[in-house]
Amino acid sequence: MSSDGVDPGTVRPGGRTARVRAAVLRAAGDALAEGGLAGLDLADVARRAEVGKTTVYRRWGTPAGLVADVLADMAEQSLPRTETGTLLGDLRANARLVARTLADHRQGALFKAVIAAATCEPQTAAALHRFYEIRVEEWAPCVRQAVERGELPAGTDAREVIRAVSAPLYYRLLTTGLPLDEEAADRAAEAAAAAARAGAFTAAGA
Amino acid sequence: MSSDGVDPGTVRPGGRTARVRAAVLRAAGDALAEGGLAGLDLADVARRAEVGKTTVYRRWGTPAGLVADVLADMAEQSLPRTETGTLLGDLRANARLVARTLADHRQGALFKAVIAAATCEPQTAAALHRFYEIRVEEWAPCVRQAVERGELPAGTDAREVIRAVSAPLYYRLLTTGLPLDEEAADRAAEAAAAAARAGAFTAAGA
Repeated sequence: MSSDGVDPGTVRPGGRTARVRAAVLRAAGDALAEGGLAGLDLADVARRAEVGKTTVYRRWGTPAGLVADVLADMAEQSLPRTETGTLLGDLRANARLVARTLADHRQGALFKAVIAAATCEPQTAAALHRFYEIRVEEWAPCVRQAVERGELPAGTDAREVIRAVSAPLYYRLLTTGLPLDEEAADRAAEAAAAAARAGAFTAAGA
Repeated sequence: MSSDGVDPGTVRPGGRTARVRAAVLRAAGDALAEGGLAGLDLADVARRAEVGKTTVYRRWGTPAGLVADVLADMAEQSLPRTETGTLLGDLRANARLVARTLADHRQGALFKAVIAAATCEPQTAAALHRFYEIRVEEWAPCVRQAVERGELPAGTDAREVIRAVSAPLYYRLLTTGLPLDEEAADRAAEAAAAAARAGAFTAAGA
């Protein structure tokens, strides 16, 4: 019972509960990156994390519940945006971060696994949508600032511009064997900036 | 043996072999759309297609082999590009076709299933990459014609422009719950056209 006797109400944040969660989510991420949702087994995750099986079953319940928490944690851990002072600089920093993440062996496999899981598991899909909403909202202010500076037309849909930066990199990852390098990242940023300047993301009445 | 005794060398194209293949690929597509790669069982596909099990095992071998042929067939069946005489018109026709396909209940589920399968199955990934290479090459001439007409800078990477049209629609399908409507399609086309006009897809030395 030693490792199962965790009562979330009795330990301080950053204490034992947080350490257990971190270990379990790390192990779950490893398992997902290795074998996808199909390879995610709560008992195996407990073993990898060196945490009692009962804790994992009680706290996360199902593989889908665990994936949802992996995604919530990824959103919490995601890096704050870089501010360079120009739209293109900001979008390029974002694009390079996305490309580096997707090109990373573990992270790329993890993103592929959660995207794949989301195609057939509604709880995972909802958690994935929330992850991207949070990430898009983190970077959207750089577009709003560019509008304020007069770099972009008024009414530009900031979130659509941020999505436009990521989209070609994810499309490249999922549908081609082409590399996710800095050239691809910079082109994604330049294309999104050019389209935004031309008013392609200006929502009528926004 | 009646439905298993097909010798591919002895029947004319469009004859029995082609009918068997069409029935099996239709049934496989239905099964994939319903349950993904995990739900694809060759015996079940044979039953749905009203074809002998032995034929399916002999000809396609494995679920991954069957998915690869589903993708080859999708590439063969994919509609020829529309020619409107302008870059934006052509890209918009392409974007609307992609959006309609992904928004379609069966087709959208089928694309999600093959993309998910490709994340963990190398044969499916290779077949998926080929599918998109063929599709991108089908539409690339509209960009090359726009360069010849002087609508786009010389050296524009035609295939990257075509990928840029599809990317936001696939990103929307996989990472958001937002609708794949005509507005999203037209915005994808306008953004790709604006970025291409601004030279964002000009490959150095191309």
